[in-house]
Amino acid sequence: MEEKEISGAVIARLPRYFRYLGELKDGGTERISSKELSERMKVTASQIRQDLNNFGGFGQQGYGYNVKFLYEEIGKILGIDQKHNLILIGAGNLGQALANYVNFEKRGFIIKGIFDANEKLYGKIVRDIPIRPMNEIKACMEEYDIDIAVLTIPKTEAVKVAEVLVSYGIKAIWNFAHVDLNVPEDVMVENVHLSESLMKLSYNLNRYQEEHRENR
Amino acid sequence: MEEKEISGAVIARLPRYFRYLGELKDGGTERISSKELSERMKVTASQIRQDLNNFGGFGQQGYGYNVKFLYEEIGKILGIDQKHNLILIGAGNLGQALANYVNFEKRGFIIKGIFDANEKLYGKIVRDIPIRPMNEIKACMEEYDIDIAVLTIPKTEAVKVAEVLVSYGIKAIWNFAHVDLNVPEDVMVENVHLSESLMKLSYNLNRYQEEHRENR
Repeated sequence: MEEKEISGAVIARLPRYFRYLGELKDGGTERISSKELSERMKVTASQIRQDLNNFGGFGQQGYGYNVKFLYEEIGKILGIDQKHNLILIGAGNLGQALANYVNFEKRGFIIKGIFDANEKLYGKIVRDIPIRPMNEIKACMEEYDIDIAVLTIPKTEAVKVAEVLVSYGIKAIWNFAHVDLNVPEDVMVENVHLSESLMKLSYNLNRYQEEHRENR
Repeated sequence: MEEKEISGAVIARLPRYFRYLGELKDGGTERISSKELSERMKVTASQIRQDLNNFGGFGQQGYGYNVKFLYEEIGKILGIDQKHNLILIGAGNLGQALANYVNFEKRGFIIKGIFDANEKLYGKIVRDIPIRPMNEIKACMEEYDIDIAVLTIPKTEAVKVAEVLVSYGIKAIWNFAHVDLNVPEDVMVENVHLSESLMKLSYNLNRYQEEHRENR
């Protein structure tokens, strides 16, 4: 892998390349030019070339990209050529929805434990995994070499639980709680703040409608 | 509202301001300086001043921001001072999780109908709303002046369903299906691609671990 720093914007676009290349591959396409790929993805061919150049570039002039090779290389860059063991904390609606999401497993993200503070849920099975009490998290992390914790608990609990997970040696947190976690910088955090996403949509809707009214 | 175009990056940060100001307001804080706000939010005071200047700026030199006023103004900008009627399409785990998410209602996003293609679900009640067949979407949209559709259906269905919604006059789509929708540009789309978010986390985790190894 290249030594140079890759911008966050490029990284954020990689999964979308991965998705399109996966669909092309599954559809039997072996090669694609940056022009064709750009038409499908609705980004400029020059952006595609620039983005993929960050990784040394995989295209050959006038010959296009090898779809399967590029798909696999991006997969490696994204770290999904290897398995990741996950625990899920918070077995409410959202937690159960995520646990049932088959695609994660297909991508090598394997849930090894589901935990909740609500004792009424203990023993309930979600996707073959029983919901267990919070005080069993540590043992589960030691048993399965857990990389990633998924936090689907209320924001009032999340900061504290994240601190405990850090003390157990968690390396990454996928955070759905609507709060900023306070973790050391060697612990990776990816936030999914659903209500913020909905507000962005609402902003764009209002803005568009106002402009539309002004133009009438 | 100002006429000038506001960058996507600023808009993306607004909900976070809104959240912090809401917490300050609920905690009884009346005024806050950009410096204090910057320490809480872990962004620079200069960024805060720049961001809020986009909206004419609400601060007074040496006096700080009026928390409640700023909270309400950002709420207006985000369009959540007014109610939005939603329909939810796809009553699987994720759809039900979203329907049960109380916070959306608190922010003025009201779900008026839940629809699914699976007839086994018809009549099942989620948060006081019965799950109904897809062919009742149009009538529901006409009855309730629906702004936003939430799509929590498989990606194989999403493109087609989005086209139907557009023909019924939908104005905005909150898309959880892992596919890019093909809608006219006067229909706003906000994508939540969960597996892409998880891949970003996996990328950062791998990257960090590699750098760590290299430095040893």
